[in-house]
Amino acid sequence: MTGIRLADIDATALQQHVDALGQIGREDDLLFRPVYSPQWLQARDQLRAWMENARLETRVDAVGNLIGRLDGGTEPETVLTGSHIDTVRDAGRYDGALGVLGGIAAAEAIQRSGLRLRRPIEVVALCEEEGSRFAAAAYWGTRAILGEIAADEADRILDDAGVTIGAAMRGVGLDPEGIPAAVRNDIAAFIELHIEQGRVLENAGVDVGIVRAITGLKQLLATISGEADHAGTTPMGIRRDALAGAAEAFIDFERLAKEAGEDAVVTVGQLTLKPNASNVVPETVHFSIDIRVPDQRRLNSLTDAVCAALQQIAARRGLTCTVRTVESQAPAILDRHVQDVIGQAAATVGASSISIVSGAGHDSQAFARRVATGMIFTPSRRGLSHNPAEFTSPEQVVRAAGVLARTLAALASGDVITKATKEHV
Amino acid sequence: MTGIRLADIDATALQQHVDALGQIGREDDLLFRPVYSPQWLQARDQLRAWMENARLETRVDAVGNLIGRLDGGTEPETVLTGSHIDTVRDAGRYDGALGVLGGIAAAEAIQRSGLRLRRPIEVVALCEEEGSRFAAAAYWGTRAILGEIAADEADRILDDAGVTIGAAMRGVGLDPEGIPAAVRNDIAAFIELHIEQGRVLENAGVDVGIVRAITGLKQLLATISGEADHAGTTPMGIRRDALAGAAEAFIDFERLAKEAGEDAVVTVGQLTLKPNASNVVPETVHFSIDIRVPDQRRLNSLTDAVCAALQQIAARRGLTCTVRTVESQAPAILDRHVQDVIGQAAATVGASSISIVSGAGHDSQAFARRVATGMIFTPSRRGLSHNPAEFTSPEQVVRAAGVLARTLAALASGDVITKATKEHV
Repeated sequence: MTGIRLADIDATALQQHVDALGQIGREDDLLFRPVYSPQWLQARDQLRAWMENARLETRVDAVGNLIGRLDGGTEPETVLTGSHIDTVRDAGRYDGALGVLGGIAAAEAIQRSGLRLRRPIEVVALCEEEGSRFAAAAYWGTRAILGEIAADEADRILDDAGVTIGAAMRGVGLDPEGIPAAVRNDIAAFIELHIEQGRVLENAGVDVGIVRAITGLKQLLATISGEADHAGTTPMGIRRDALAGAAEAFIDFERLAKEAGEDAVVTVGQLTLKPNASNVVPETVHFSIDIRVPDQRRLNSLTDAVCAALQQIAARRGLTCTVRTVESQAPAILDRHVQDVIGQAAATVGASSISIVSGAGHDSQAFARRVATGMIFTPSRRGLSHNPAEFTSPEQVVRAAGVLARTLAALASGDVITKATKEHV
Repeated sequence: MTGIRLADIDATALQQHVDALGQIGREDDLLFRPVYSPQWLQARDQLRAWMENARLETRVDAVGNLIGRLDGGTEPETVLTGSHIDTVRDAGRYDGALGVLGGIAAAEAIQRSGLRLRRPIEVVALCEEEGSRFAAAAYWGTRAILGEIAADEADRILDDAGVTIGAAMRGVGLDPEGIPAAVRNDIAAFIELHIEQGRVLENAGVDVGIVRAITGLKQLLATISGEADHAGTTPMGIRRDALAGAAEAFIDFERLAKEAGEDAVVTVGQLTLKPNASNVVPETVHFSIDIRVPDQRRLNSLTDAVCAALQQIAARRGLTCTVRTVESQAPAILDRHVQDVIGQAAATVGASSISIVSGAGHDSQAFARRVATGMIFTPSRRGLSHNPAEFTSPEQVVRAAGVLARTLAALASGDVITKATKEHV
């Protein structure tokens, strides 16, 4: 095994990169780097310079992903690491960025350690993970690499200003006709470092989370309808109060989620009421239901149970109810061998770790369908993400980069990368 | 007793008046007669003409109430009937209007019957019951008669355009300095005919409701606060979900209202959520709580129970909670002797009746604090009020006017008006 230690990570440079990248796309103290924008281009140019400083050989692929390569050995398949550099509006400095900057720091540390690689390591800055500019194009960069972009998407997918993603690509010198050239079949493994976006690690006081699965998602929109009535003159017994029915359902959802296991969540986050007047019994309630379980069978059965509870409560109260699915994402199971490698890497650099489920989506979930994939989570203060107050301490950042470096080194210098994940496909 | 029969009511004229008054203040098919507006003035002029046609002696008091008087006998105290002619925006034809028009029809029927009165009967068109133009001036006309308008109100109370109610009075030729002249001490009883504004009569298939009480009201605004969290990455066990807490409270409110008796209601009609995003656990829920019970002690204890439930649920869930009272109205108990008189009147004209509680506020609740007061409810289709689709069949309208006529006749020709109610004050 390799001799990489935390001291091989250039902590000062890594923190400077986090801080400097967090200024690119900042305007009136609001950070936003939508894909294919001038700010995004500026960030990519900066990263390219840092990659070249770290003696990585850089290129930009057909869809705009930036890749920095550390050649090594004779095995043809690459160990890929990275994350995204596009952000949500009013973003923090860590979400996505840390995975790319940590990858550069790790690649540098590996070179510094003098380790002999059997296969190349590449660091990638992926584009449009968030779908912040093109909502229908989330995981765009990853999907390009995996050959999952349909021929009509470039002309079909629009931003809020009505610009197609193809036109946006041309605006930064990319030809959407060339997207198929981004497809790769030489990737052995994908490892992504990311902030947790939750409070599990912070609450547990643990340095890193080893992600075993990325949760599956069903997003539903529901409407419960009853009858608008005068709040003073309609006895409780003859009301058909849509909000009372919805409230009863919400309590049921909470119970069903808890019964479905610690990794299952159900959230009603959005709700509107009609007519929404203090002296009128509510006629209609529209609300979202967000259901997440990292197992497809259990996700389906929890979704069924939520819908059945809703229908049953509505029927008993003389209310009508409709539900439609607006989004559905399959859970991704991450590679077991890679999880073991990350666990050993954490132990070797002295970082405490636990196994964890990601409740948010990541580029890794797309990669996991095709290659051995692993994710390393670092704590984010108060679980914040998509928030300007995102913060991970410099010590945690270095520790996470060290775990990443040892993981990449082990995978790039080891005999064989597990193929177990590929069998899932 | 008198010999007044339903046939003494001029059904054709009464229905024509309902229809014609329903056109005054209608613009683009929307009916709105705010107090002291040209539309309101036009309605008052029309009513004055109809009163004079019915051989009532008319006058307008210092605040703008229109009064039509049928002299009679030697007893000095008056039997007053009527309701309001101001409306909410997008009103129906019956709310308020029916009480004035029914009063005119009743006064005419009494004259037609040749009955000898012992005391005068007056029909009044009261102003600004709804508070549609001056929210802080609800029951303005009635409060003027009862001497309950404070000296500073005319200059203090504003409409949405910033016009004081005093300036609005001057605009229709009234001097706000003269308001005290509207005070009366010669009213023996007040009887108000009104549509029910609920579905109790319609559901029971009954012709008239004899109101025994007007419910008391507490209107609260509550805020429950927890923590906004990522819907995917925050396990159920560590959430502080403001909406889940609110939902649990709503179910408790419903149970508490039912336990408090058939005449008690609790309504959450208005609700807003923050941040109101499908993938974020709700941080804050603002909502209204409307509590009505026709008994002050029980109203207070239900309000206490609602607040206690809220605090208890919030505490158990780690949420914070604030509640403030935005409106408070004492219940009014209507006169028992007058209720008996109305019941006998209904039986004599062949109208079925039940005792009922008014869940909405009326001029009668102010009068009830001072004089023997009764209310006669007629069914409104589907319980609608404050709604252009308000409808009471011509047969029900005549039946209600007949009950009113016999009630007024009995009170104006009887030996004595009960003073029981005055003792409540």
